[in-house]
Parts: sequence; C-alpha cells; structure tokens
Amino acid sequence: MNQLENLVELLCRLPGLGKKSAARMAYWMLQSDQEYNKALADNISTIQDVIIRCPQCGNYTDQELCSICQDSSRQKQQLCVVEQPQDVMNIESTGEFHGVYHVLHGVLAPLDGVGPEELGLNLLVERARELDVKEIIIATNPTLEGDSTALYIQRLFQDREILVTRIASGLPVGGDLEYADKLSLARSLRARTNF
Amino acid sequence: MNQLENLVELLCRLPGLGKKSAARMAYWMLQSDQEYNKALADNISTIQDVIIRCPQCGNYTDQELCSICQDSSRQKQQLCVVEQPQDVMNIESTGEFHGVYHVLHGVLAPLDGVGPEELGLNLLVERARELDVKEIIIATNPTLEGDSTALYIQRLFQDREILVTRIASGLPVGGDLEYADKLSLARSLRARTNF
Repeated sequence: MNQLENLVELLCRLPGLGKKSAARMAYWMLQSDQEYNKALADNISTIQDVIIRCPQCGNYTDQELCSICQDSSRQKQQLCVVEQPQDVMNIESTGEFHGVYHVLHGVLAPLDGVGPEELGLNLLVERARELDVKEIIIATNPTLEGDSTALYIQRLFQDREILVTRIASGLPVGGDLEYADKLSLARSLRARTNF
Repeated sequence: MNQLENLVELLCRLPGLGKKSAARMAYWMLQSDQEYNKALADNISTIQDVIIRCPQCGNYTDQELCSICQDSSRQKQQLCVVEQPQDVMNIESTGEFHGVYHVLHGVLAPLDGVGPEELGLNLLVERARELDVKEIIIATNPTLEGDSTALYIQRLFQDREILVTRIASGLPVGGDLEYADKLSLARSLRARTNF
C-alpha cells in the first residue's frame, strides 16, 4: 500500500466520509499548496494538546477557562445543560441564550456503565448551588437517552427553588407536516402554544 | 480564533466539506486516539514529497515508475488516455482494461491558456510511437472540454495506422429513462448496439 492509499484509508475513518470522498480529498491535497497541507497537519497533530475541557463547564477551550465562563456579561443564574461541546457552538450561533453552559460529555447509559456519577451530575448540582442558579434549561437531544437524562436531571432539582425547563421539540422550521414523523408531530401537538 | 476554530476553517477548504461536516470532523479528532491524529498529520504533511508523477504515464506513484508501467503483463500496445490520476484508479477498479495509461492532468482549455503543448500532447504522440501502440482509447470526461480534447487527439492520430476509440456515453447502469437528461439519452440512442 503506498502512501496515497494509506492517506485515503485514514481519511475514510473520519465521520461522514466514504471511500470516494476520501479519495477526492487525498487527490486534492496532492495538488493543493504545500503550505495548506503543513498548516492542516500541524493543527491535527497538536489539537488534543492545545484544546482542553473548561474545568468549570466542560466546553472546549485553549485557555484556562472557556470564553463563555470568562465573560462577565453572561447571566450566570441561567444554566443550559447540553450533551456535547458542539451543542454549545450551535446554541451560541442562535444568539438566543445569554446564560452559561454545562457540558455533560455524554448521556446516561446504564447498559454502557454510564450512571449519574460517571456523567458528573454531582458537579452539576454543586455548580448550580455555587452560581445560585435560577433556571436550568435542559438541552440534551430529544432522543430516548437524551430525554431520560433530562428527566433524571429534572428530578435532581425538583425540591429546590430552581425552575427546570426543557427545550421544545416539534416540527423543524420549514418542515412539512406530510413528511413529519409521528413522534415529532405528536410532540408538536402536545406542546402547542397560543398565538 | 482558537485552534479548534482554525482547524474547522482549514477542513472547510477541502472539497465537498461544508462548515457543519468540518466541525463534526474537528470535534471527532479531539476525541479520537492521539495515534490516529499523528498518523493522519504525518501523512498529510509529507504526501506531496512522497507521491510524484510517473515520468512515463503521469499517474501518481511513490516509486520511480508507477505500478502499472512497471507491470510487464500489461498490454503496452493499448493506451488509455485520461484526464486525471483518479480516473486511472476508477478504470482499474472495473478490471476491464489491461493496457497502459496516459494521464493528461487536464483538458484543452484555450481560454485558460491550456493548449496542446501545455497538455503535453507531443509526449503522447511520441509515447504512442515508442510503444508501437495499436489502439488508443480516449477516456476523457463526456463533457464539452473532454469531448473537444478527445476530438483533438483523434485528429492527431488520424493518418497513422492506429485505432482511436472513445469510451461509450449513454444512460448509467441502473438509470431511469424518465430522469435521464436529453443529451445522455440522445447519445445512448445514437450509439445503440445490436443484441
């Protein structure tokens, strides 16, 4: 196997890349400027040393604290719980949320040995107390695992004076009733709002 | 911009990758094993030094000659002309062709300053003579540029005793007449074959 085949093989393992797209990329790299390749390679080889988890919220950062935890203008009494750092990026891109985050880095999965302790839910409770949080928005995915994790977290806080909310689930904007799945449609009916 | 954003930015420039897929890959790399990242980075940074063009046919190789030119069992009197090294890989994967290749690394594009000389068509003529070629199969893409390049090459060889052929163009296997474009359908009618 020569290095070109090897590169295709390695690229294939990236998420969402088939053999054809990987080959296309490898051939493209062969013809791209050398500087780009060096920059990409340097970046890939050091990314895990440079980017760490923020010790407060678990988001990815290259500093001691992530930019959101550092930002004094964020409303620290509103805490949004998400599964992955990617979710922070997505929520930030909406510009709708001005509180702080808590990244679980997973969901409850008892069969895989991920219980409340492994997920660090005690840290979440502690952090909510320290920040004197008024509202916890649970933004785990609307999947079976995400929903059960949300429910578990809600119960953790139910005898405290904290408002626990869950992001809405329903039809996506621009979606079509004709093609909506039953569950999403059922949820969007149940969670209907007044005009 | 931190290194994670920088990595997403760099990955975005790869062909066929949007912002979302690039971000997905970058986050995946953050969680993948360090060894994979190192291997991928090493490979990318050295690929252009290791993989060169075969001096005979123009295909990519990590040796003095590419594996096809080195293979004495290939029928050297049958020469297949393609646009890109990728095309060699695709034709090889069919197992239908046992001759040798000539990679143009482009097509005639007079407006972009790519004429017969820039495309090294004189080398093709010379090579055909040296190999005492009996058939030249022109496998440039069935596009406007690919077709004109094919026509030009055909004329180069028309007063020699060499059979010049063009790969067939028509409906793809598994295709559907209902959704076929006019041009492909017209070509497949014109190039109809006997049962």
